[in-house]
Amino acid sequence: MLVSFKPIGIVHVNFSDYEIRACWSEGVEGVIEVYKEYAEGLNGIEGFSHLMVIAYLNRVSDEQRKVLKVKPKRLKILGFGEDELPEVGVFCTDSPHRPNPIALTITELIGREDRFLKVKHLDLFDKTPVLDIKPYTPSRIIQQIKLPEWYQKIIEKARIKHPQVRDF
Amino acid sequence: MLVSFKPIGIVHVNFSDYEIRACWSEGVEGVIEVYKEYAEGLNGIEGFSHLMVIAYLNRVSDEQRKVLKVKPKRLKILGFGEDELPEVGVFCTDSPHRPNPIALTITELIGREDRFLKVKHLDLFDKTPVLDIKPYTPSRIIQQIKLPEWYQKIIEKARIKHPQVRDF
Repeated sequence: MLVSFKPIGIVHVNFSDYEIRACWSEGVEGVIEVYKEYAEGLNGIEGFSHLMVIAYLNRVSDEQRKVLKVKPKRLKILGFGEDELPEVGVFCTDSPHRPNPIALTITELIGREDRFLKVKHLDLFDKTPVLDIKPYTPSRIIQQIKLPEWYQKIIEKARIKHPQVRDF
Repeated sequence: MLVSFKPIGIVHVNFSDYEIRACWSEGVEGVIEVYKEYAEGLNGIEGFSHLMVIAYLNRVSDEQRKVLKVKPKRLKILGFGEDELPEVGVFCTDSPHRPNPIALTITELIGREDRFLKVKHLDLFDKTPVLDIKPYTPSRIIQQIKLPEWYQKIIEKARIKHPQVRDF
């Protein structure tokens, strides 16, 4: 069974892939263009401060779609060595290399001009196809969460190395 | 351009569609089966208390995919009249009727048996195909959010009518 979607929009950012990778924890500013035929779907969106963007990571290769176990690679940027990182299942991570390369990015909406949404905290490359947009509503906030020990250990180490990084 | 995905799993719930619709605010208990070939992707997932499930709403028809403006229908269950509900763009709502019927459900993980995840707060029908699973990590919690006036008004009214309902 194959599930098919037509992108409803596209990401525009004025940063190179390298720059976007380098600021993954804060993300970059950019614009989400919603295609004309879907523009009406944005009515009333202005007042939300945050949006959840579901996108298709179109640079991920067929080979990379086969990856099931990963060492959280982004953390290498923070100076973790291979040995310090545990190998875990892709469904425990945000790794783009996964069977269905779907991104879920929480962005801050800073402006709207017609069918163009200006947002902050994008971690998507230029020209990434957008599949859906959903509002970030109070029900998305889960106050009491638990994390695996392996994850807590990474966070603790990362906080010591990079106290400025917002939550992981 | 068409984007295609192969489901990595499937939802199992022992409730009828009607029952699931009726308890949308709390959701139901159920099991997410991850197919054998993707089971390794779950390694290390046990310790997360919450997971984000990305699913394909396979009952949505081609006609319903054309919907761009909606009156948040779930609220009708809460006793709102047609006149009380604003008409807004689908990208401001969680309506299943949208160009790409992708669901994003935050579930509570209450147990794992091999490649079967027992979860709470499912709002998905039995046999819904699952496209991806991501952990609910601290970065998903946005403490300071703003909501449109039209949305705040609905919440206020709903809280008076149904004080037991958790956040919307």
